[in-house]
Amino acid sequence: MALSDAFLSRLAQIFPPGSLFTAPADCWTYGYDNSRRQSLPDAVVFPSNHVQTVELAHLCNEHRVALTARGRGTGTTGATVPLRGGVVASFERMNRIVEFSPGNRYIVVEPGLTNQALQDFLKPHGFFWPPDPTSAAFCSIGGNLAYNSAGPRAVKYGTPRENTLALRAVTGQGTEIRTGVLTTKGVVGYDLTRLLLGSEGTLALITEATLKLTPLPQAKRTMRAVYADLSNATEAITRIMAQPAVPCALEFIDGNAIELIRRYSRADLPERAGALLMIEVDGFAEGMAVQIESVRQAARNEGLLEFRVAETADEVEALWQTRKALSPALRKVAPKKINEDVVVPVTELPKLIAGLNQLSQRFDLAIVNFGHAGNGNIHVNLLFDPAKPGETEKAHECLGEMFSLVLRLRGTLSGEHGVGLEKRDYVDQEIDVGALELMRALKRQFDPNGILNPDKTLPLPG
Amino acid sequence: MALSDAFLSRLAQIFPPGSLFTAPADCWTYGYDNSRRQSLPDAVVFPSNHVQTVELAHLCNEHRVALTARGRGTGTTGATVPLRGGVVASFERMNRIVEFSPGNRYIVVEPGLTNQALQDFLKPHGFFWPPDPTSAAFCSIGGNLAYNSAGPRAVKYGTPRENTLALRAVTGQGTEIRTGVLTTKGVVGYDLTRLLLGSEGTLALITEATLKLTPLPQAKRTMRAVYADLSNATEAITRIMAQPAVPCALEFIDGNAIELIRRYSRADLPERAGALLMIEVDGFAEGMAVQIESVRQAARNEGLLEFRVAETADEVEALWQTRKALSPALRKVAPKKINEDVVVPVTELPKLIAGLNQLSQRFDLAIVNFGHAGNGNIHVNLLFDPAKPGETEKAHECLGEMFSLVLRLRGTLSGEHGVGLEKRDYVDQEIDVGALELMRALKRQFDPNGILNPDKTLPLPG
Repeated sequence: MALSDAFLSRLAQIFPPGSLFTAPADCWTYGYDNSRRQSLPDAVVFPSNHVQTVELAHLCNEHRVALTARGRGTGTTGATVPLRGGVVASFERMNRIVEFSPGNRYIVVEPGLTNQALQDFLKPHGFFWPPDPTSAAFCSIGGNLAYNSAGPRAVKYGTPRENTLALRAVTGQGTEIRTGVLTTKGVVGYDLTRLLLGSEGTLALITEATLKLTPLPQAKRTMRAVYADLSNATEAITRIMAQPAVPCALEFIDGNAIELIRRYSRADLPERAGALLMIEVDGFAEGMAVQIESVRQAARNEGLLEFRVAETADEVEALWQTRKALSPALRKVAPKKINEDVVVPVTELPKLIAGLNQLSQRFDLAIVNFGHAGNGNIHVNLLFDPAKPGETEKAHECLGEMFSLVLRLRGTLSGEHGVGLEKRDYVDQEIDVGALELMRALKRQFDPNGILNPDKTLPLPG
Repeated sequence: MALSDAFLSRLAQIFPPGSLFTAPADCWTYGYDNSRRQSLPDAVVFPSNHVQTVELAHLCNEHRVALTARGRGTGTTGATVPLRGGVVASFERMNRIVEFSPGNRYIVVEPGLTNQALQDFLKPHGFFWPPDPTSAAFCSIGGNLAYNSAGPRAVKYGTPRENTLALRAVTGQGTEIRTGVLTTKGVVGYDLTRLLLGSEGTLALITEATLKLTPLPQAKRTMRAVYADLSNATEAITRIMAQPAVPCALEFIDGNAIELIRRYSRADLPERAGALLMIEVDGFAEGMAVQIESVRQAARNEGLLEFRVAETADEVEALWQTRKALSPALRKVAPKKINEDVVVPVTELPKLIAGLNQLSQRFDLAIVNFGHAGNGNIHVNLLFDPAKPGETEKAHECLGEMFSLVLRLRGTLSGEHGVGLEKRDYVDQEIDVGALELMRALKRQFDPNGILNPDKTLPLPG
């Protein structure tokens, strides 16, 4: 897609020097994300305010130029890769805190603010914003909202959909809209806020978000439960989630992952360990003992090999050490991994892991699983060597079978990474024809000319 | 709207005798709700399953007959009043529990199940579903979802939008859709679930809902804080909401309401009481003391006249007595009341109440306020006597000014009652033109012929 001179000259009127790149060398880095996919945009702009974003959308719509919003490129699905070229709008400079209202427990921010910067700002005031993706240090709030990104804390505190009150946004026609309300209740009109959250920049560009804040808990305690096998661990997950001390993290590591950690690091784990849970609870210091006891009772079953509670910061660190050894170990075992974030109902976890082990044997590929067990959200890591002939194809065939397995178990293809390009062609296996047609129809209302992040999120028609 | 013979004969094929009413005397009671508005439907049907509902929607769409879904008629906004006649579909007989999955903390129910029947079913299993409208004993889950109804517990546990995982529904074209997932995380496709919640039957008929369950807390404690004036109470609300013992109820009664209670009942209240808060916390029995202490500290300020903690069930009852005396007192003071459920950011509550007192003086009408303070959700009661000439008109003029005040304070016109007919013509004061046009466009995608609950929720065009 070559941009016309008329378009470029108008673009330069909106975006003064320093906020507009057109040289391919400058644009290059704005064409990829953490999926490692790459596509060169024809121009990159850096909006610094809402009005500029409105003008940009109008211009792109008028000229039918693709317009792709970008946070910090930490996404893993290729959702910000500008497949059709056109303009990438990088919101990194639009990172102000617009309004902070501690009395009303909300903060209004621009989309380019990083998650970490937000948390750092909030902490001295005794608040936090629950979504905590692993990439929090770098990823932007706009990206978190576009993907509905979560993280471990979601099991207690929810995802952006439960923690966002209102949005200011610009549609694919350049129409300015405000959605939602400043308060935690509000039922006037349809819920456009949640419709935009998770829509991956295909419906509108978010220029401002009002985030619901949560008071910081006083204390947090970390536990580790090790089980002989997976079904024991699953039984414990179910029981932990049914008692009133809802954990603020309930992470899971499967037997293959434990095996890997054993092989590549010095892990302090019982001999027969077949599955492991990391559990955290938070709240008042005085309430920690009763929460821990409630979790301990729920975690107890015939397969429990060990239950440890960290008493000091060093012990917390030691407990998490096993989990943290995993990523380096994964890198050692295979040159490439496909990391998927599927979700199944918690009671189906044993069937999921058993099915994955069968796929692993059938395709002769290592599969290692860990993730946010309280939500049934498992990060499945398919390990392979793209240098070996046919291995990449085999991995992708295995991936397809894995998705079918997840859907047979009444799960969903993505819990927090989103769809983007990576899962786009599988979406119609999950969503029925009627709902998919409605989603396409909604897309046309927000973006009649299909300029916003084209070819993403929904399967291509036909 | 007279129904054609062809239509009626097809309707009778779908709905056997006993599940179809056409005699006006039979239809009469299905034409009103708690707004006291009334409009006679031409037919009333009682779907007993999803397939029947699909056939019904197809038929009504083909014949362009208005189709209005109805729960138990406890709504206060006229949302289920069939303005254009046509068919009312009463879901009261579609009240089964389809699937209960304690291990996955969800339950799948049909829309006609009452809120109370759901809670009664869940209690022995140690779970509850948070939305708790005052009408819980009678109102249906379908109605709760259609209005996004909440109640006192929303301040800690959220509204249906935070407590619903998935829906099965039928659009205005008879298209069957499934929205959402069975799990607490899921980001595939657009969020149609939340779009349907609160849409008051204008987008689709909900035939099944998967509800997210919460473990029942072990213990609950009740407190009452009485303040010299409103600004002291507001300061306390803000501070209570900023500390980590998030209350499961934070109810507010203003000075006028206290005055009323004094006049019409024996209230055990300090002399100078100008505002009152009822506060409840829940959790582990062992954690109650620290939660109460945290609330007590947040509640303390120079205007605090009294802070009581109930120690026994009788004392709890005694504390709530003041609140419960309110409704009978309201009935004594004026033959008619308009009860609105506006919301403002908590810090704006003093301005809201001051503004309402000014309106009360200007229009010479009593206004009494109480409500869910933690959400800034205030039930404003405008009291008047329709027998007095001009009084009804005066009340409605005052209502309009009240809504303007709420919007100036950056609030919303409804926190939980919804829009229906009562607030329909005010909606465009709250929602901007761009968003409203999008909502209308979305409505056309779900219901191209406008048969579903026509003329509700969104302002009439033009």
